Amino acid sequence: MSKEHNIPQRVVEKMYSEDFFSQWLGIKVVAIRQGYCLLQLTIVKQMLNGFGIAHGGISYSLADSALAFASNSYGIQSVSIETSISHTAPLTEGDVINAEATEVSRTNKIAIYNVHVTNQLNKTVALFKGTVYITHKEWFQKD
Amino acid sequence: MSKEHNIPQRVVEKMYSEDFFSQWLGIKVVAIRQGYCLLQLTIVKQMLNGFGIAHGGISYSLADSALAFASNSYGIQSVSIETSISHTAPLTEGDVINAEATEVSRTNKIAIYNVHVTNQLNKTVALFKGTVYITHKEWFQKD
Amino acid sequence: MSKEHNIPQRVVEKMYSEDFFSQWLGIKVVAIRQGYCLLQLTIVKQMLNGFGIAHGGISYSLADSALAFASNSYGIQSVSIETSISHTAPLTEGDVINAEATEVSRTNKIAIYNVHVTNQLNKTVALFKGTVYITHKEWFQKD
Amino acid sequence: MSKEHNIPQRVVEKMYSEDFFSQWLGIKVVAIRQGYCLLQLTIVKQMLNGFGIAHGGISYSLADSALAFASNSYGIQSVSIETSISHTAPLTEGDVINAEATEVSRTNKIAIYNVHVTNQLNKTVALFKGTVYITHKEWFQKD
Repeated sequence: MSKEHNIPQRVVEKMYSEDFFSQWLGIKVVAIRQGYCLLQLTIVKQMLNGFGIAHGGISYSLADSALAFASNSYGIQSVSIETSISHTAPLTEGDVINAEATEVSRTNKIAIYNVHVTNQLNKTVALFKGTVYITHKEWFQKD
Repeated sequence: MSKEHNIPQRVVEKMYSEDFFSQWLGIKVVAIRQGYCLLQLTIVKQMLNGFGIAHGGISYSLADSALAFASNSYGIQSVSIETSISHTAPLTEGDVINAEATEVSRTNKIAIYNVHVTNQLNKTVALFKGTVYITHKEWFQKD
Repeated sequence: MSKEHNIPQRVVEKMYSEDFFSQWLGIKVVAIRQGYCLLQLTIVKQMLNGFGIAHGGISYSLADSALAFASNSYGIQSVSIETSISHTAPLTEGDVINAEATEVSRTNKIAIYNVHVTNQLNKTVALFKGTVYITHKEWFQKD
Repeated sequence: MSKEHNIPQRVVEKMYSEDFFSQWLGIKVVAIRQGYCLLQLTIVKQMLNGFGIAHGGISYSLADSALAFASNSYGIQSVSIETSISHTAPLTEGDVINAEATEVSRTNKIAIYNVHVTNQLNKTVALFKGTVYITHKEWFQKD
């Protein structure tokens, strides 16, 4: 397989290996390809807030990592401009959540992703939208 | 001082004492009053992402805690409906950030807060907006 | 057919007959059912801005009407809390656009809709998300 | 006065003279300077929706025009990437509303504006946030 074909994997491996916060969250990369990413994490006690449910920052962080991986998967560095999230159902300790980032628009400067966050029963728990700016920097130098 | 006057402090103490994620983040409550909250945290290595800067989830989580504390400060439970954040400048290890939540609109059902996140040089690093639904549940039973 | 089955149509007919702005825009109701609405309009010269393309307010207004019709279709009055829109491609005079509102989350108080706006070539031209608060007022008194 | 000093006015005059929709809305430019714009309009019957109040598209359109004028005021063409609005109080026929756009962040590629919409009693009726991409095209060629 040529190097070109595994750019999404190479980018995410590089990003993830230095992403200490995603590592602390215990994020697993389930799938990655150009413009797409599926991540998973398990809610642990340290992620709960004062209502006894997962802090809003947990599903945001998972979705934001999915946005970063999906939008950088082309091998060009992309940076977040604007993100929004609606938390539609509470999460408790032991829940396993998936965040699936799909590309809904892409020009040469701007791309938009929806990230759908679901629990282990496939119930929607959060809806995230992220807009990124596509820079000119490549992740890997061409040979 | 009557109990009525320290409801914001009592609510936040109760919320924070059970908010394991805000504790993990090392969030400090600098100021709290009705409809207002000022929080602070220091960026540590475990909060960095694959670009070597703070993960977007860190300033989101700080702002989201500020939203929760400010909107619950009246003694009535409020839950987040929709939040958005723009990350306007990168954060690195050792940076100290403040999140100041101010109420911009409040009806009997819905309230809106802006949270302004700044670094130790008073530079804006993130702009957050949060909308909450005001329930009928009180945090403390009346005597 | 029982009255219950045509509540979405009855609500939208009533709303639209008094919605002077949607009428000025020339909005056509293509389809309506519980939690769903498809609207259409044609871009005319009076809708253009200083760049010679449709003003952002046009696709917003179409999407906002789709949100209003879809969310009120259950016969219970619903009011917009928060909306966002990304304009992903320009529109010019003569373009015919469709706005399709689909329900992505619904509790007894809050519902969230995505509205996908496309042109006559089925290209995405705007992505809209709207959150509504569901009141207790019914559109029609029960017999 | 040198030409440099009246660039904001020249840009807005040019944009407005070809902005048929802002003209239809009866928008008045109250003030314009670099990164700032204050607009006004009066709610007329044709702007009402099925609830007998101004359609959400009216205050959105006013705020979006304020965003366009404020962000283009530097003489460089800027285009909207993402906008959001919360409608916090209803508007009725005869109400006079102001939209004040202020710049909250600006880099060489991206700028963010808040637009505060108030009625004739200075009550907040809508809160708008807009993000623009700053292109390389100038509005006027240099001599």
